[in-house]
Amino acid sequence: MSDAHERHRLQSLLDAMPPVAAMGIRLARLDAAGLRLEAPLARNVNDKGCAFGGSLASLLTLAAWGVLESRLRQTGIEAEVYVAHSELEYSSPLYEDLAAEAPPPEASAFSALLEKLRARGRGGIVLTAEARDAGGRVAARLQGRYAAVLRR
Amino acid sequence: MSDAHERHRLQSLLDAMPPVAAMGIRLARLDAAGLRLEAPLARNVNDKGCAFGGSLASLLTLAAWGVLESRLRQTGIEAEVYVAHSELEYSSPLYEDLAAEAPPPEASAFSALLEKLRARGRGGIVLTAEARDAGGRVAARLQGRYAAVLRR
Repeated sequence: MSDAHERHRLQSLLDAMPPVAAMGIRLARLDAAGLRLEAPLARNVNDKGCAFGGSLASLLTLAAWGVLESRLRQTGIEAEVYVAHSELEYSSPLYEDLAAEAPPPEASAFSALLEKLRARGRGGIVLTAEARDAGGRVAARLQGRYAAVLRR
Repeated sequence: MSDAHERHRLQSLLDAMPPVAAMGIRLARLDAAGLRLEAPLARNVNDKGCAFGGSLASLLTLAAWGVLESRLRQTGIEAEVYVAHSELEYSSPLYEDLAAEAPPPEASAFSALLEKLRARGRGGIVLTAEARDAGGRVAARLQGRYAAVLRR
């Protein structure tokens, strides 16, 4: 599947989730360097005029979820991907549009996940994602453990 | 301030945040036992028909935030409350309306926070929240560190 088709498929998946659509989340990039999601501040603002922590959590959780979902799909594997555990560090308030980037899964960890999926139909992997402002300062960071389960 | 007034004030704060309003979050209870937030599944559903992880993260983050914000207000303190760090455990998929409960801050930790606010205008506290299904099974759990900063 081409990158353009894969981007379209993933954006459609996002748009089909009402809370994700409400946040105005847009897939800005999906390639070998990972996945980038963006969302307008106006739809994700809190009582203090900066990005709502729950929106940052959602964007980061989705970025890492999407990079894995997509990578599995491009490897020819149909699996459901769930977040199982996450740790979120909020470093500084963000007063601009939101953006989150997740790098692709680390190669050896991804191989180990594929092995687990082949052997017993499910497996877990640790992924990361970061939200930075336009100046490159980290606003929030996620480390998450995700579970993948083969579709029957 | 009466509990009814405080509930109304807090619900107004929630409604004023676009991502929170989009999730349909309603303050269901606020009393000495803590705070309970609810949200309809239809507005918070993912691609698998169960509660979106980001919505659970938002609801849990807000429940603990709200219980502290409100408790400070009822103590006569005007402070901005921010989430600084959180750990989320997703135990089981939730196929029904979302609900999250946060107990009030533990008494000695709250006293320590008040002391820090008096001494230097800011302080932190660790809070918890849980999302359970109607049968009482935990779907997701948060432990979060929150920062409070006195308003000038």
